[in-house]
Amino acid sequence: MSATTNETAAAADNAVRYPLLSRIDSPADLRALSVGQLPQVCSDIREFLINSLSKNPGHFASSMGAVELTVALHYVFNTPYDRIVWDVGHQAYGHKLLTGRRDRFHTNRKLNGLSGFPNPDESEYDTFSAGHASNSISAALGMAVATEMNTDEPRRNIVAVIGDASIGGGLAFEGLNNAANTPNNLLIILNDNDMSIDDNVGSLHKYLAQITTSKRYNNMRFKLYRLLKKLHLVSDRGRGSILRFNNSLKALLSRQQNIFEGLNIRYFGPIDGHDVANTVKVLRDIKDMTGPKILHVKTVKGKGFEAAEQDPTTWHAPGRFNPESGERPAGTPGPHPPKYQDVFGETLLELAKENDKICGITAAMLSGTSLGIMREAMPSRVFDVGISEEHAVTFAGGLAKEGRRPYVAIYSAFLQRAYDQIINDVALQRLPVVFCIDRAGIVGEDGATHHGVLDIPYMRAIPGMTVAAPSSEEELRNLLYTSSLGVVNGPMAIRYPRGNGQNADWKTAMKQLPVGKGVEVAVAEGAKVALLSIGTMLPAAKEAVKIAAEHGVAVDLYDMRYVKPLDGEILNLVASKGQRIVTVEDGALAGGFGSAVAEWLADRGISLPVKRLGIPDSFIAQGTVKELHALCGLDPASIAKALVDASNP
Amino acid sequence: MSATTNETAAAADNAVRYPLLSRIDSPADLRALSVGQLPQVCSDIREFLINSLSKNPGHFASSMGAVELTVALHYVFNTPYDRIVWDVGHQAYGHKLLTGRRDRFHTNRKLNGLSGFPNPDESEYDTFSAGHASNSISAALGMAVATEMNTDEPRRNIVAVIGDASIGGGLAFEGLNNAANTPNNLLIILNDNDMSIDDNVGSLHKYLAQITTSKRYNNMRFKLYRLLKKLHLVSDRGRGSILRFNNSLKALLSRQQNIFEGLNIRYFGPIDGHDVANTVKVLRDIKDMTGPKILHVKTVKGKGFEAAEQDPTTWHAPGRFNPESGERPAGTPGPHPPKYQDVFGETLLELAKENDKICGITAAMLSGTSLGIMREAMPSRVFDVGISEEHAVTFAGGLAKEGRRPYVAIYSAFLQRAYDQIINDVALQRLPVVFCIDRAGIVGEDGATHHGVLDIPYMRAIPGMTVAAPSSEEELRNLLYTSSLGVVNGPMAIRYPRGNGQNADWKTAMKQLPVGKGVEVAVAEGAKVALLSIGTMLPAAKEAVKIAAEHGVAVDLYDMRYVKPLDGEILNLVASKGQRIVTVEDGALAGGFGSAVAEWLADRGISLPVKRLGIPDSFIAQGTVKELHALCGLDPASIAKALVDASNP
Repeated sequence: MSATTNETAAAADNAVRYPLLSRIDSPADLRALSVGQLPQVCSDIREFLINSLSKNPGHFASSMGAVELTVALHYVFNTPYDRIVWDVGHQAYGHKLLTGRRDRFHTNRKLNGLSGFPNPDESEYDTFSAGHASNSISAALGMAVATEMNTDEPRRNIVAVIGDASIGGGLAFEGLNNAANTPNNLLIILNDNDMSIDDNVGSLHKYLAQITTSKRYNNMRFKLYRLLKKLHLVSDRGRGSILRFNNSLKALLSRQQNIFEGLNIRYFGPIDGHDVANTVKVLRDIKDMTGPKILHVKTVKGKGFEAAEQDPTTWHAPGRFNPESGERPAGTPGPHPPKYQDVFGETLLELAKENDKICGITAAMLSGTSLGIMREAMPSRVFDVGISEEHAVTFAGGLAKEGRRPYVAIYSAFLQRAYDQIINDVALQRLPVVFCIDRAGIVGEDGATHHGVLDIPYMRAIPGMTVAAPSSEEELRNLLYTSSLGVVNGPMAIRYPRGNGQNADWKTAMKQLPVGKGVEVAVAEGAKVALLSIGTMLPAAKEAVKIAAEHGVAVDLYDMRYVKPLDGEILNLVASKGQRIVTVEDGALAGGFGSAVAEWLADRGISLPVKRLGIPDSFIAQGTVKELHALCGLDPASIAKALVDASNP
Repeated sequence: MSATTNETAAAADNAVRYPLLSRIDSPADLRALSVGQLPQVCSDIREFLINSLSKNPGHFASSMGAVELTVALHYVFNTPYDRIVWDVGHQAYGHKLLTGRRDRFHTNRKLNGLSGFPNPDESEYDTFSAGHASNSISAALGMAVATEMNTDEPRRNIVAVIGDASIGGGLAFEGLNNAANTPNNLLIILNDNDMSIDDNVGSLHKYLAQITTSKRYNNMRFKLYRLLKKLHLVSDRGRGSILRFNNSLKALLSRQQNIFEGLNIRYFGPIDGHDVANTVKVLRDIKDMTGPKILHVKTVKGKGFEAAEQDPTTWHAPGRFNPESGERPAGTPGPHPPKYQDVFGETLLELAKENDKICGITAAMLSGTSLGIMREAMPSRVFDVGISEEHAVTFAGGLAKEGRRPYVAIYSAFLQRAYDQIINDVALQRLPVVFCIDRAGIVGEDGATHHGVLDIPYMRAIPGMTVAAPSSEEELRNLLYTSSLGVVNGPMAIRYPRGNGQNADWKTAMKQLPVGKGVEVAVAEGAKVALLSIGTMLPAAKEAVKIAAEHGVAVDLYDMRYVKPLDGEILNLVASKGQRIVTVEDGALAGGFGSAVAEWLADRGISLPVKRLGIPDSFIAQGTVKELHALCGLDPASIAKALVDASNP
């Protein structure tokens, strides 16, 4: 069959499988449908997501739960002129399908394909960067205030869509606290499925659950408001009258005030987020009301796919699955290299069994960091604080201050959110907190917002911080052990990557690794080049040394292990040999490990050529780790080329 | 008179002026007094603060407002075994006076003297690092949870004292949201004076004001609780019963629930924070209740000193004053060099008059950043979001996304709190936000938590960020102008120091400064050394070049202006001359400006000696800027020595 015939057949097939969705190339097409047709659109989207994601893995349960909400929003609001700001964006696949990206959806999370998150570079419908939780209210508030100032164009409606876990983040609270400060008409949709990626924690989600009980009150209030408005007894112009109305109504009904109303944001709901017709109706009712407002929508994560509804944590990002049965392929049997996160999780539990001071802290990533392993065994010594990275770090500081030994497990890209707390609440006080920085380096399919490439620069600039990066599973295990021995004065950071290691046989007896000492991996007779590798670049570095040798270039190879302090003995040795240095790191070059090596040499008046390999000064999009490493010149062939070049200056 | 006679006379004088305070060398002495004597202690403390701070400037109004609270806390709690965690710590001078530091208080904020903030290195009564707002709840919660785990020692009471502005920060909310997650008996004191350093903003403070109206309800609830407890109808053991009690009582009284109760934290108050006897009584009543709880205390900032009560913003840190009249010495008349912050404030207003897209954002620092100048003239285009640095940045991103040109003015040390937001909500999207980083470099008397020494490393690691540092008032003005012209693609950071410049005549016609270009300040015949200066190190650098010349060492001097991108033309010129390089910066060496220069050279295979001068890898305590620069080797003599050394390798 020719390509054209192929495409025609696929189009015909799609028209049968997705009768309405296949005709929607933009939200304008959606808005041409009747409200009565919307349930079919929802059904088409779910069918499409199941078919597509079962083959091409991605985030599943969040988008399944937000289908009706997504359809209702694009139906009621004039997108892209009106703005929808998705928080995190795990839920935005339906949005991508409705906004002209259905035919490219099979490229989701792939190199040069669609981003797994809303991405303004990809579509004008993606209004703001997403991926890090809790930013939507602040961003949308900025847009909502701007649209009031932009008097030269018609006013835009601005909508933030935020989950019940994200809204517990400090940034979201700051946004709520400021929402009523400045004239604006922001609409916040609270998409409440009582779930984080793991179980939601914190008091706020319990509070949200209780609100349901006051549904009658809210309905009554809303109906009364509409009645009074019809009778022209209240008006939407001027915030004062609205506030007076709310307050008097509150007095009238003499029932509890809710948190959002306490912050001067009008509250509506909760409504059933799977009733698309009613969601459309409510959105139409409230969209032109002035002032900031919040609509509380109850949804079920994984809605429409039985297995996902039952176990939404597993189905947050389930990998491949059978679209009929929901079965997920079993892993390959027999011993295989573990994920780094599991090496962390299992080793920490072993250490915690020996030392009852050890405790674990994470921020909504029990399963992602494998801290859940220790949580399972010792629930009282593990703290999942929810999406609250800042709190996680300061809380750990408090625990350490009273004699506990906290291990804080957070992804590199998210730990950025607690930078000030690491500095002032931990490092300044030399508290023995260990930062277990998961997902360090290129993470692959999650793309630009999730690559953990800045932790070396931002951690090594902090006085008193020890920074280590293991080159293998075993080294991670031994660094964790070392961190528990009290030999490091003050805090310590241990960075390790996403994904699997290389060694199935990692569970060896634990060994102390001297602080600030690297290891000689290989020395070659008469080598004029030294390759200094940090962290899990080591396997690629070894490979590169082999390739260089095949080109007749001898190279000494060192696994430096510690970014800070650097191993002066190794550097002195390299300097005494007058070797040309190549550094390799899975992290940003600006201020990174190679930069630290250049500083070390400069401070000692040693002038040696240093070629630094790492992540260049640009944001890296999605792709596999292998593809992206190659793009950054971190594959064995590229490293080998640098070694050969260094030998012929 | 001999020193001993002097001391005896001073002691006798103190015994008259501060009859009770002069006898309190530790809180144990305070606890030996009767409740009836406490008002005299408070009066003594106020008298002492007025006398001391009128001569030796510091933070005034906050501590004046917290006198009774401080006395009551140390009277009721068994400090230092029990822990008091002060948020920010502006209010903690009374605490210092009661905890053995009265005789050293005249060294407050001075080199080798007392820190202006609570500091665990200084006293066991200072339990946690303070200076950056909103961390007390999280830190104290960590300590409170730890004390429950530390079953080998008697339980400690843990108290966090936080102001109504600090509690609006996202970190504080995260702490509140997590306070009920884990068994603990944390007591949070909300010291509510309805003030930030500037006016408090955000809805929360309005909400707190309204709570007063429900005082009757709270009192009733509290009395009923005590009655029921006496009758053994409720017990403090087991959280369930307490929650049930609260809920049923709420139903019984059918009145509004407050935000803290919504988060499962028991709420008491508000009480009059200047009634020391009643504050003692209430603290005694609630101190042994289980579970997290909050006591809302109303105080007046500046209490007891008329002028400060009337104008608490000015009297936050008033400088020297007349202890009787409250008069503050007028500045020296005639033209004099402006503060950098005023150059920013006045220039931004000029730019904003020409370009109606420009708006200003700050986080509770309208007066400290002088953004208040524009606020005065154009209130609708300036946003003070309160203590919410994260929100400030993301909000600015939203404004920029809809076509505004936001200028975000935040101190260097506080901007650390918004690191993730700078990366993802601004830089990733190449949004034209300008970060005006005030208080960059050594700030002097505020000490370790306030020095802004990390911004060069943390900003230059971000892809697409332009980083500039003016060497003079005029250059700041011109960089601000340049930033407004749309010639910078994406965000820009401009860092400038605390305090005054050197040039009274700075208000010249604005000039565009080419991006990534520095200037040659002086070239010397046959110079073997090049000094690369960034930012306001330039005057010291010039001085150093003169001194070096006196020692027969010729030096070329460049003002680099931009950290990123670096001026390759200058660096190539220096390289072509084979000069030895000395770099000088008012910032951290690890990953800083000199590091960037070393990277630039290494990346081009240029091996030249680079001697880097800057802030070493340790936390720097308080002192004058001049003293601290000298300690760090950044005074002209030290720089000159480096130049001479470089010329004789």
